[in-house]
Amino acid sequence: MYRVDLNCDLGESFGAYTMGVDAEILKFVTSANIACGFHAGDPGVMHKTVTLALKNNVAIGAHPGLPDLIGFGRRDMAISPQEAYDMVVYQIGALSGFIKAQGGTMQHVKPHGALYNMAAKKRDLAEAIAEAVYKVNPELILFGLSGSELVRAGEKTGLRTAPEVFADRTYQPDGSLTPRSQPGALITGHEQAIAQVVRMVSEGKVTSQQGAEVAIQADTVCIHGDGSAALAFACRIRETLEGSGICVQSAGKYI
Amino acid sequence: MYRVDLNCDLGESFGAYTMGVDAEILKFVTSANIACGFHAGDPGVMHKTVTLALKNNVAIGAHPGLPDLIGFGRRDMAISPQEAYDMVVYQIGALSGFIKAQGGTMQHVKPHGALYNMAAKKRDLAEAIAEAVYKVNPELILFGLSGSELVRAGEKTGLRTAPEVFADRTYQPDGSLTPRSQPGALITGHEQAIAQVVRMVSEGKVTSQQGAEVAIQADTVCIHGDGSAALAFACRIRETLEGSGICVQSAGKYI
Amino acid sequence: MYRVDLNCDLGESFGAYTMGVDAEILKFVTSANIACGFHAGDPGVMHKTVTLALKNNVAIGAHPGLPDLIGFGRRDMAISPQEAYDMVVYQIGALSGFIKAQGGTMQHVKPHGALYNMAAKKRDLAEAIAEAVYKVNPELILFGLSGSELVRAGEKTGLRTAPEVFADRTYQPDGSLTPRSQPGALITGHEQAIAQVVRMVSEGKVTSQQGAEVAIQADTVCIHGDGSAALAFACRIRETLEGSGICVQSAGKYI
Amino acid sequence: MYRVDLNCDLGESFGAYTMGVDAEILKFVTSANIACGFHAGDPGVMHKTVTLALKNNVAIGAHPGLPDLIGFGRRDMAISPQEAYDMVVYQIGALSGFIKAQGGTMQHVKPHGALYNMAAKKRDLAEAIAEAVYKVNPELILFGLSGSELVRAGEKTGLRTAPEVFADRTYQPDGSLTPRSQPGALITGHEQAIAQVVRMVSEGKVTSQQGAEVAIQADTVCIHGDGSAALAFACRIRETLEGSGICVQSAGKYI
Repeated sequence: MYRVDLNCDLGESFGAYTMGVDAEILKFVTSANIACGFHAGDPGVMHKTVTLALKNNVAIGAHPGLPDLIGFGRRDMAISPQEAYDMVVYQIGALSGFIKAQGGTMQHVKPHGALYNMAAKKRDLAEAIAEAVYKVNPELILFGLSGSELVRAGEKTGLRTAPEVFADRTYQPDGSLTPRSQPGALITGHEQAIAQVVRMVSEGKVTSQQGAEVAIQADTVCIHGDGSAALAFACRIRETLEGSGICVQSAGKYI
Repeated sequence: MYRVDLNCDLGESFGAYTMGVDAEILKFVTSANIACGFHAGDPGVMHKTVTLALKNNVAIGAHPGLPDLIGFGRRDMAISPQEAYDMVVYQIGALSGFIKAQGGTMQHVKPHGALYNMAAKKRDLAEAIAEAVYKVNPELILFGLSGSELVRAGEKTGLRTAPEVFADRTYQPDGSLTPRSQPGALITGHEQAIAQVVRMVSEGKVTSQQGAEVAIQADTVCIHGDGSAALAFACRIRETLEGSGICVQSAGKYI
Repeated sequence: MYRVDLNCDLGESFGAYTMGVDAEILKFVTSANIACGFHAGDPGVMHKTVTLALKNNVAIGAHPGLPDLIGFGRRDMAISPQEAYDMVVYQIGALSGFIKAQGGTMQHVKPHGALYNMAAKKRDLAEAIAEAVYKVNPELILFGLSGSELVRAGEKTGLRTAPEVFADRTYQPDGSLTPRSQPGALITGHEQAIAQVVRMVSEGKVTSQQGAEVAIQADTVCIHGDGSAALAFACRIRETLEGSGICVQSAGKYI
Repeated sequence: MYRVDLNCDLGESFGAYTMGVDAEILKFVTSANIACGFHAGDPGVMHKTVTLALKNNVAIGAHPGLPDLIGFGRRDMAISPQEAYDMVVYQIGALSGFIKAQGGTMQHVKPHGALYNMAAKKRDLAEAIAEAVYKVNPELILFGLSGSELVRAGEKTGLRTAPEVFADRTYQPDGSLTPRSQPGALITGHEQAIAQVVRMVSEGKVTSQQGAEVAIQADTVCIHGDGSAALAFACRIRETLEGSGICVQSAGKYI
């Protein structure tokens, strides 16, 4: 039987600012990546989001980002591997505080935004992040772009990993995502996006933008959590996956 | 046999800024209160300070503060008990990440600056902080001003507590510190300061500024960590305490 | 002829976070208080908000706040008068950069949130803020709570001042606002709120919560800028004021 | 007669953290680049540093940096030209507030750290920064690495520019600095460093690391401001320049 995890970035509100429809999207996903106060989130938001995730029986992961609140952690920064290690340890620890206080457990770690993208390509950063996760808790699962340096670093370090795919992005022949700056990077049709995911999960393949068959591992699928369209899509993809005989459950249950 | 703990605030550097003589003061104290990134400290500094403390065999505690880096956490802020709870959970968690990554354990929590002072007087804040500590880890020892609401809240919550005294401050008849804004608040002579501590530890008494005998519990003594005078004082007080037959060891060993 | 200014807090978005309906509310108000990056706002948001205000021919003011983004500047902080002076100079200066770059002029300064409230009661803070405004530009108008220490400090310093009233708050016999913590602090009916403003402007009087007639000066009225109800209210109060023969124009035109 | 300006980064303290020996170095330099709160500095520090500079009759410039206090603005960030424009306008404005409040004038703008280095090479960032400076005040002088995109952008925009050289760095045949990562990037001998500057100012030439003669324009020389060695060097270079018949004065007097 095929199995897949649906993950979503949550807890991205900050102080007086609200972002996302966390309470609603939690009904459809199986893993929550919770912001840890660097690119988004604050202690109060983290507390509430952990409570919400536990209530919805959704597995919890840390979503560490760059220290760039204005840029929402989306701007590359020239950080050293040591700095990456330290900021990941810090953020995993901070979120762990709230999880422990509520008697839960942390399932995974998924870097956010520019940290995620840099770690997909730069081996030294990837290894520093994997090391940070392992040192804090070797039981944690590392989420990273399927086929990336981050997934390789996680495996090398001895962590369980969950290669991640994107429903709404097209792929290149080498298995990488088509850069957003290029035409056709995004899949706008819900049906096409869902069909791509079903095939990635059940056949381990994706058709590249150029028409080639590409092998890809899809252990977890990233679902967006902002806006009503995101909710409709999340509902639909879950229904379709389950209707296709694919078991949708949190990564920790089968990895 | 009398026993006492000597604690010091450490890890207060930030980015390119250096504060304190951490490597030196660690030779004389038994407990290190490590800043957690709100009023001072950053992930890199926390990592290095935990390493230093472990190397010197000094017990480690979290030193959570208000989110006020410009004010070094010394300015009162009108935070709610819920906000106090959340910022303490966050900071304990963040420091725990570094301690776990190095295989150590956290011994205690001591709030910093204005958070410490507000928690000494405001019961609701004190109880929120004690609750935060207990929920993250009920084995932690709570350090607070001797006779304060914070110590009372810790006991009520079920935590072990270490009432703290100050070598270089004078006391009032009710056991509170003479406010810094009043004349005679500080004891400037090293001999007098040390003699006051020896008496607080061995007799459980202090002579108030007005000349009255006041009962006081002294489980841990706050030592300053900045400057060469601080080092000389730390060295001297430790020698004198030990020379007086008082065993100087970390709070976790006897509380 | 009676004249009054309608002011609104604007530019409170931050990074990826959106707050307020700035483009819409600007059609109804005559003065914009623009956040300066401490409690809300960032350089990009400030740039866009100044552009919007100029385009709508709305007078621009700086809206300096406490350095507390998580708390949106609403939590009292124990800052010194010197610190208040410095943070106000900094924020006025920062906003001035954007205004100068677009060829506009700054009309006024209105402290935000806890800084506004503290400056209403604490004379030393009020005087430091007034001094900061005057030193940067003595032509600026200082907005402050009608009857407050801040307005008095502004006058004493030699600034023009615009005493501010609130449409949706009830008043006490001494002219102060009923604290939000007390019952009846808020006026929820739009008609009653608007009628109160019309009377404050045209008669210089308000009926206190206890039924007493109280003299009050209303040079500018604070309008909320968040949500569709706020827009409807802004539209309505402007129509009613103008329908009552009151000229609604920016403070700088008549003070 | 040859003329040159000696500039130094100042006002880099922050809150409880002290950096640099501002009061001493001001006796030797002619232009002060004052940090504006993003990579270093805070409102109180800016206030004091402006006061110090005015007292020492040293010309004042803004020293805007990236919003990265932990990294001291030294880590490259992938900011857009629009973001560069906005952060420069903001920081020039903020410092202008303090200068205006004390009746002084701003002479120049010199980007800090990674912003300076990125603007030396990336034309779009350089043009955005030059545009920001020009729009806030076209009378300002733009300081940038001699031969850089930033200097070219300043000239193209219509600003006066001051090409900057470094006493303690070696040069490549194309006039660029030898990267710090390469051997021989730094000149450690004071005599050799000073001789290089004298030649750059009086002959417009520098000998590259490879031994080639390279044309270079040296309107201002960057002097370090931290530590006693820096003070001794500043004193010595000023004496030598003046002893060589070179007039040391602030850039605004001759550019």
